[in-house]
Amino acid sequence: MQQNARIAVIKGDGIGVDVADATLAVVSAVLDRVGLPGLNIDEIAAGAGYFRDTGRDIEPGGEERAAESDAIFMGAIGLPSVRHADGTEISPHLRLRDRFELYAGVRPVRAYPNAPQRLADPRAAGIDLVILRESTEGLFYSAAVHGRSQIIGDSEVRDTLRITRSICERLHRFGFRLAEKRKARGGKGLLTCVDKANVFASMAFFRKIFDEVRPEFPDIATGYNYVDAQALDLVRQPWAFDVLVTENMFGDILSDLAGGLVGGMGMASCAEIGDHHALFQPAHGSAPDIMGQDKANPLAAILSGALMLDYLADRTEFAAYADAAKLIDEAVMAGFSANRLRPMEFGGDMGTRAVTREVIDLIGESA
Amino acid sequence: MQQNARIAVIKGDGIGVDVADATLAVVSAVLDRVGLPGLNIDEIAAGAGYFRDTGRDIEPGGEERAAESDAIFMGAIGLPSVRHADGTEISPHLRLRDRFELYAGVRPVRAYPNAPQRLADPRAAGIDLVILRESTEGLFYSAAVHGRSQIIGDSEVRDTLRITRSICERLHRFGFRLAEKRKARGGKGLLTCVDKANVFASMAFFRKIFDEVRPEFPDIATGYNYVDAQALDLVRQPWAFDVLVTENMFGDILSDLAGGLVGGMGMASCAEIGDHHALFQPAHGSAPDIMGQDKANPLAAILSGALMLDYLADRTEFAAYADAAKLIDEAVMAGFSANRLRPMEFGGDMGTRAVTREVIDLIGESA
Ligand SMILES: CC(C)[C@H](C(=O)O)[C@@H](O)C(=O)O
Ligand SMILES: CC(C)[C@H](C(=O)O)[C@@H](O)C(=O)O
Repeated sequence: MQQNARIAVIKGDGIGVDVADATLAVVSAVLDRVGLPGLNIDEIAAGAGYFRDTGRDIEPGGEERAAESDAIFMGAIGLPSVRHADGTEISPHLRLRDRFELYAGVRPVRAYPNAPQRLADPRAAGIDLVILRESTEGLFYSAAVHGRSQIIGDSEVRDTLRITRSICERLHRFGFRLAEKRKARGGKGLLTCVDKANVFASMAFFRKIFDEVRPEFPDIATGYNYVDAQALDLVRQPWAFDVLVTENMFGDILSDLAGGLVGGMGMASCAEIGDHHALFQPAHGSAPDIMGQDKANPLAAILSGALMLDYLADRTEFAAYADAAKLIDEAVMAGFSANRLRPMEFGGDMGTRAVTREVIDLIGESA
Repeated sequence: MQQNARIAVIKGDGIGVDVADATLAVVSAVLDRVGLPGLNIDEIAAGAGYFRDTGRDIEPGGEERAAESDAIFMGAIGLPSVRHADGTEISPHLRLRDRFELYAGVRPVRAYPNAPQRLADPRAAGIDLVILRESTEGLFYSAAVHGRSQIIGDSEVRDTLRITRSICERLHRFGFRLAEKRKARGGKGLLTCVDKANVFASMAFFRKIFDEVRPEFPDIATGYNYVDAQALDLVRQPWAFDVLVTENMFGDILSDLAGGLVGGMGMASCAEIGDHHALFQPAHGSAPDIMGQDKANPLAAILSGALMLDYLADRTEFAAYADAAKLIDEAVMAGFSANRLRPMEFGGDMGTRAVTREVIDLIGESA
């Protein structure tokens, strides 16, 4: 008998609720479409609103339940008005990335027809890359556990950028495997190491481990780029790249930049994957100003739902989920091609619910 | 009697030599044009090539001579084949930024007609902004003095991001004054603080000091942006910004990104200014593969020369240099408008010398 996966869902703050609901509706429809039982949902309260009301950023026992799930799905976390005394925001998801060692932050960037396209060059229609953002250390080492920054009176504050062999080896292997997987589906089979090895010993170490891992994957072509040059290359020739592996903070910046070229955060899906756990969420924020108004674009979240199904499919007990993931991806692509997906965020006429319904319809129509 | 300024010139490596020579020729022509005596040049040997040959990255006494000059002009430094044992490159200019407290890294980004324009939106023709990159601390604190990184066997390396009140106060004031100066010349009068204050205590501190300094400049409008959102905004609506003040590493990335929108590094001029010293250099690298071949685009260096004259003009003894700075800027703009500047880097037919001659001709023709 087919088992159903157990998903911890943290809807979070602001539009996190809207887009999480949209995603669950689409996932439920697609599993139904391929004849699989629905997900087993365990909803967990967390976020800045929860912190404001209770003084805790996640409900008691919430992290333990998340740990027992097959995957975690998150809407969005954060409210600009709710902050720690040092000015930083409430970020339980940074702690989850740390606690569950979710080192592989997967951020796909893809051009869709009729979605915004910022670049003049027609080759930009071929943008199809992934920013692989290390997501537990790098500069975020300082922020993963609140209070790790060094505050020296009112005159100086220090944060630490940490690179470890243990994480880097796994991250780079993940990058090569991702490039292999994409190659099998028609991708370029190219992994670019993005660092600042010319200046920082930590980044030279990041590249050194890349070079150590490289011989294990002779079928994947490799490249190097300094992060500043990479930012330039992403506006000059983003179609030339496939998978870019990089440090946490660099990946944060580059994934927003690359996403901005092709529709902005409304299409920015995200998976954060470790050896034993994984978390899926849109890369956009909680936009509390438009929450509950049926205005948010749910596609980043819905595409993150597809990443989640794809991840689950790699675990043998849920292999059948692969078809469901593919159906969502194809529905979104087909919807844009036929101009049937017109989110308000892109100047279109469709709110959260209309976009969600249309994706479900498109899935229903698929052969 | 008009004094002439004393300039320390470090031509450096690769095309650094080509573009420094081009700049000195243009500066000499423009000073002649406005009836001022030429610069007093003190050439100093430094760079990766010098390090390879001598084991030192700058000639003995060079830093002291640079300290005594009115300004330092640099071509480019670095050769990928010459590195320290930890993999980082030879970077005496990072030490100079540190030693001379050149905290204000000024990187103008401007659209020129007929120069490459990556964005489809016609408003991109109005791009005219400055990235103000703090240039002595931030993450580069670790790299300013070689060996400051913490290397833990072969398993971990740490770098430190440092933000101090002392530098931030001066940096933000510099930013406000720059916005004022630009406003007087028709600019927007807008200063945006770019940080990651939602995550890092150091960055929240950076923003806090921005807020403290702000009331001193009531005529300048202010904005805030997280660095990831700023990267996205730079592809979405770069014409909406004026001066962006940010941490060292963030500024490195954002200035390349913004420069990439409008002609790439070939137009990327740069000033690094402290309270007592200043260094001017194109933001591009040394491109040793094309050195000495008359292929390099000298315009980034030439525009950096204009920044240098403008800086000197702010010191009373050289006030007359202001006209010379303006003439260079206008010549480059006029040259692009009339399609008389066609650098090879942009697919044109003009090498280093032809571009240089044309700029000199344009200056000669100016009313
Ligand atoms: C909100 C913030 C903590 C977060 C991050 O920087 O990781 C966000 O920018 C992201 O990209 O997921
Ligand atoms: C070469 C490198 C040290 C330098 C830097 O990062 O400062 C360069 O990228 C720049 O932008 O001036």
